[in-house]
Amino acid sequence: MNNKNTYIRISLPAVCFVWQIAMVLLFGIFIRYNEEADAHWVEHKQQHNLTDIDNDFYFRYPSFQDVHVMIFVGFGFLMTFLKRYSFGGVGFNFLIAAFGLQWALLMQGWFHSLDQDTGKIYIGIENLINADFCVAGCLIAYGALLGKVSPVQLMVVTLFGITLYAVEEYIILNLLHCRDAGGSMVIHCFGGYYGLAISWVLYRPNLHQSKHNEGSVYHSDVFAMIGTLFLWMFWPSFNSAITNHGDGQHRAVINTYIALAASVVTAVAISSMFHSKGKLDMVHIQNATLAGGVAMGTSAEFMISPYGALIVGFFMGIISTFGYVIVTPFLAKSLKLQDTCGVHNLHAVPGMLGGFIAAIVAAFASDSVYSHQGLINTFDLTGEYASRTMSTQGGYQAAGTCVAMAFGLIGGAIVGLILKLPIWGDPADDNCFDDEAYWEVRACFRPLDVALAL
Amino acid sequence: MNNKNTYIRISLPAVCFVWQIAMVLLFGIFIRYNEEADAHWVEHKQQHNLTDIDNDFYFRYPSFQDVHVMIFVGFGFLMTFLKRYSFGGVGFNFLIAAFGLQWALLMQGWFHSLDQDTGKIYIGIENLINADFCVAGCLIAYGALLGKVSPVQLMVVTLFGITLYAVEEYIILNLLHCRDAGGSMVIHCFGGYYGLAISWVLYRPNLHQSKHNEGSVYHSDVFAMIGTLFLWMFWPSFNSAITNHGDGQHRAVINTYIALAASVVTAVAISSMFHSKGKLDMVHIQNATLAGGVAMGTSAEFMISPYGALIVGFFMGIISTFGYVIVTPFLAKSLKLQDTCGVHNLHAVPGMLGGFIAAIVAAFASDSVYSHQGLINTFDLTGEYASRTMSTQGGYQAAGTCVAMAFGLIGGAIVGLILKLPIWGDPADDNCFDDEAYWEVRACFRPLDVALAL
Amino acid sequence: MNNKNTYIRISLPAVCFVWQIAMVLLFGIFIRYNEEADAHWVEHKQQHNLTDIDNDFYFRYPSFQDVHVMIFVGFGFLMTFLKRYSFGGVGFNFLIAAFGLQWALLMQGWFHSLDQDTGKIYIGIENLINADFCVAGCLIAYGALLGKVSPVQLMVVTLFGITLYAVEEYIILNLLHCRDAGGSMVIHCFGGYYGLAISWVLYRPNLHQSKHNEGSVYHSDVFAMIGTLFLWMFWPSFNSAITNHGDGQHRAVINTYIALAASVVTAVAISSMFHSKGKLDMVHIQNATLAGGVAMGTSAEFMISPYGALIVGFFMGIISTFGYVIVTPFLAKSLKLQDTCGVHNLHAVPGMLGGFIAAIVAAFASDSVYSHQGLINTFDLTGEYASRTMSTQGGYQAAGTCVAMAFGLIGGAIVGLILKLPIWGDPADDNCFDDEAYWEVRACFRPLDVALAL
Repeated sequence: MNNKNTYIRISLPAVCFVWQIAMVLLFGIFIRYNEEADAHWVEHKQQHNLTDIDNDFYFRYPSFQDVHVMIFVGFGFLMTFLKRYSFGGVGFNFLIAAFGLQWALLMQGWFHSLDQDTGKIYIGIENLINADFCVAGCLIAYGALLGKVSPVQLMVVTLFGITLYAVEEYIILNLLHCRDAGGSMVIHCFGGYYGLAISWVLYRPNLHQSKHNEGSVYHSDVFAMIGTLFLWMFWPSFNSAITNHGDGQHRAVINTYIALAASVVTAVAISSMFHSKGKLDMVHIQNATLAGGVAMGTSAEFMISPYGALIVGFFMGIISTFGYVIVTPFLAKSLKLQDTCGVHNLHAVPGMLGGFIAAIVAAFASDSVYSHQGLINTFDLTGEYASRTMSTQGGYQAAGTCVAMAFGLIGGAIVGLILKLPIWGDPADDNCFDDEAYWEVRACFRPLDVALAL
Repeated sequence: MNNKNTYIRISLPAVCFVWQIAMVLLFGIFIRYNEEADAHWVEHKQQHNLTDIDNDFYFRYPSFQDVHVMIFVGFGFLMTFLKRYSFGGVGFNFLIAAFGLQWALLMQGWFHSLDQDTGKIYIGIENLINADFCVAGCLIAYGALLGKVSPVQLMVVTLFGITLYAVEEYIILNLLHCRDAGGSMVIHCFGGYYGLAISWVLYRPNLHQSKHNEGSVYHSDVFAMIGTLFLWMFWPSFNSAITNHGDGQHRAVINTYIALAASVVTAVAISSMFHSKGKLDMVHIQNATLAGGVAMGTSAEFMISPYGALIVGFFMGIISTFGYVIVTPFLAKSLKLQDTCGVHNLHAVPGMLGGFIAAIVAAFASDSVYSHQGLINTFDLTGEYASRTMSTQGGYQAAGTCVAMAFGLIGGAIVGLILKLPIWGDPADDNCFDDEAYWEVRACFRPLDVALAL
Repeated sequence: MNNKNTYIRISLPAVCFVWQIAMVLLFGIFIRYNEEADAHWVEHKQQHNLTDIDNDFYFRYPSFQDVHVMIFVGFGFLMTFLKRYSFGGVGFNFLIAAFGLQWALLMQGWFHSLDQDTGKIYIGIENLINADFCVAGCLIAYGALLGKVSPVQLMVVTLFGITLYAVEEYIILNLLHCRDAGGSMVIHCFGGYYGLAISWVLYRPNLHQSKHNEGSVYHSDVFAMIGTLFLWMFWPSFNSAITNHGDGQHRAVINTYIALAASVVTAVAISSMFHSKGKLDMVHIQNATLAGGVAMGTSAEFMISPYGALIVGFFMGIISTFGYVIVTPFLAKSLKLQDTCGVHNLHAVPGMLGGFIAAIVAAFASDSVYSHQGLINTFDLTGEYASRTMSTQGGYQAAGTCVAMAFGLIGGAIVGLILKLPIWGDPADDNCFDDEAYWEVRACFRPLDVALAL
């Protein structure tokens, strides 16, 4: 019996318009260009004896565009693997990200870029990167919900997700003064547990009625590889996008590149080991190969050393593949946790482990390895933090990981309860994983087509 | 009755060889490296006290590569949506662009980079970007013609399109001294109306005979999303690729990023509103989400402010989606305008509106907002233009938009008449939108395959 | 009769783990960050009066990411064209590259970046680019073997391929002091002949039994175009990634961009000419359009002039398409050379010709064209090479091409013999070109799916 109604003709446009108009008003009140993007730059640079190349734009724009590709093509195509939900995978990913980044510019702006004198948020390229990062947390959560929620629910997930992200990020980066350039903690650990908690609250006991729609077909698995590869290739840019100029960006790229390479090899090994004839499984290749990048998120900018990065990638490929083979089915059966994309294995656990690994690496950081000035730069040990010891820093890093997890779990549980209200147009249990619910699939509205039919 | 012959075994190779040989000769006569790409740079930089990083290459190369992706993968895959014309969509796009950029280097070189002393065109990275831009105009026009013309006709469309583009660009940028960094006027408005006028002249009363080929299938719509997303993600690079170093590039990126985000949300809203159950239509998600980028083309480098960009994107998402739902079918029925991809809604109208929006933004530009030097820099108010007032500049910007439209409409009509000659191998009315006409589809010529069959 | 066993449950994980653990140990012993990626940079730059923008990272990172995309998406998707081997095409490409780049960092490090005092290899962004380059040689070889070997065999091909590459590269670049920025010789010529020699040794007389799996379907050809276009678009970055800062990178981009454009036009012309009705063949569009980039690999940084680049591209498009139509079937029949992707036409021959073209261009280089300092810079005529004449340099360039070819042919023959051992789990003659052999295709292991079935 289908007692759900996926009619969203009023709710979806209403939510889109209300929130978009709110964005216009709030941008009008708060958001301005920062000094590097404002036409006053020409005078500013003369006063400060700068040249155009000193503009932060040139240090970060290539990385920004790579991150942008990860958000829209990477996450989007990774979620096209379901045979009948490719439109929803890439399309709702697009909607979430486009709305979310606007709200992120505001939320993160209030916490990090608000000028106390003028009451304005001054934005530049780094704000755009951070907005994309912030959105990534919500897209990870979407991975756990894929195929089981309506686009209106996803807008709610995004609105609260961005808000929670901005708060936990403020606590972790500013109050605890942790380092987390690639966001093992604030992005992956938070986003993963946020999605898992929502999914747990929204448990569907009769989801097996949609089993015919679950699973992939040959071509949809190839589409998903587009997502995998763009995530994999550009992860060095992700982890280095907001690290320090110079060695910070350089080192974060090297570490991430190396860790990811090791993940591929061990994911292949474990995937083969778990099949009776040694065949590989596309799920593992699409996902577990990325785990090294997730886990290097926090320590990418640290002097973890190339072999340290290799070891992290080595174990993450193993742990993540193991998760897909053993843990996700176990969680689904025993914990009633329906995690469509397995974000538990790719984001939640590797993100959490990445946070703790970084805590250990930070605790052992020393002047001899970093140089005195290098240590101060890498961990930003200035001002009130100048006297913080590295073991203390390690403790704070570990605490930050716990904060991210707690925000994800508690925030997700609350948002899940909100989404249980019967007003959001979510699909019935026998109607999940099916684009028919929210997309015009059969009749094609190609405009010329309409005219030709007349 | 099929009275058309798609035999192009003589005409296509002939056109390709004649034009390619002409290119070799003209490149030999005219084109040389500019001082930043010539091996003399090492001496040049010493004389002018420059370092390697001052080479324009480092300011523009990342943007160039993004633009390059938009031209070949963005436009190419956006046009793979038809179920039986994906080869033609991405393949002819490739051909047009590869030929067009060579001719564009020459045409734009003669107008903009010709050294009066030596009679040579000195090229560098900015010329490559401009050649890609120039090609974009022809690819937009191809969108209106998709599936209805032969590759030989497309070569003709490209040859004349590049020529017309170079002339209108010279009039708009040099004679009228307009600003148009992202080409709302010179690229989108011109290209859109150029394609529409050609399509109008080539009206096929019996196109409904190809109705079985029109429309998309599930997978072809996912392929088209590759195009959409790469266009969407890299549009900030498009609009900033040739703006001023420093704040110019930085601001153009921010404005475009913001406008595009708003377009997605409002396009989703309107798409849902127009369906009886609120379902989304892939056509709108694939196209109307991009309208904000088109309309920000001219004003991206202006101080339109972030909320101004958001408002532009807001309305463009609405207008463009509305165009796909209402205007294209209306034009097809009443104006006999067969616009396969709906370039009217994505390029022609948003481009034209973008031109007029920029005229207004320019007219209200002031020293207080831009700073005195910033205003001069942004609008290049130097030399004979030093005394031009901003309201005058606004008037010229509006005039430039009209020039672009006029060139598109008149040029397109003339080219359309040329294409009506019965020598080009175009398909019959019941043979449109079908790769069979120009591609070896059934029998596969995989070279090893051939050998295995022996 | 199928007397082969594709059971790799022990061999594949064993090889992956043994080699990955060896990598960890060797990285631990040898690999460290170089001074630009080490946290000491902050002190280093103060001592040497540098700023962050002088870090090589900012000169090379955008190009590196483009190269990275070519390796994983470019080569990977180009090899998805087979209708039943897309997983193997993109998936094994991923495995080869991820393992290979680690071994390449070590091998190239020992030859080029080993510090004699400390015994360590200090790596930075240029090492990552070179590792990707090194991997490209093996991926080219994979193109000749596609569908006919097991993943364990591919790991062996990669291990030996990287090793051979590092040695021939050392001979060509260091001992012969050749220039080969984009690797016509060391990458394409070597990789192509390496793959062909292996394929020749592994000749399968009954491969026609797998004919039903050979060949493409409509969608797989569109997938392959993703690979083609990313290779095509980013080839300018490939050829310029490790050229000199400033004019070297700038010029290499221009030359490659131009050569590639011409290849497209002439490949289309020849493809059309060879079909009875003038129809185009996707094989040629996917491959021969790239030949201009291959052939410009060595001379991209030289003052070949824009029309010189155009001429190279012009002929390469012709030669490569001709190869696909005539030569590959001929080689398969008469030489028993089964070259799945036709790497003979895209890499081996254009790479070899590119090497010889560069020899000629180098021999005619002069102070008047390059400037005195420019000639020294471009050919690195310093130290013991300061007195080398350009005609001598040209001779060495030609010798280098022969070295690359010899290494490919002899090395490939030896590796082919090793791969004939009956322990590698390769498929039977009637089981080639089929993902079923090494991938779980029918039953889907989506983890949630498994749980839903319970």
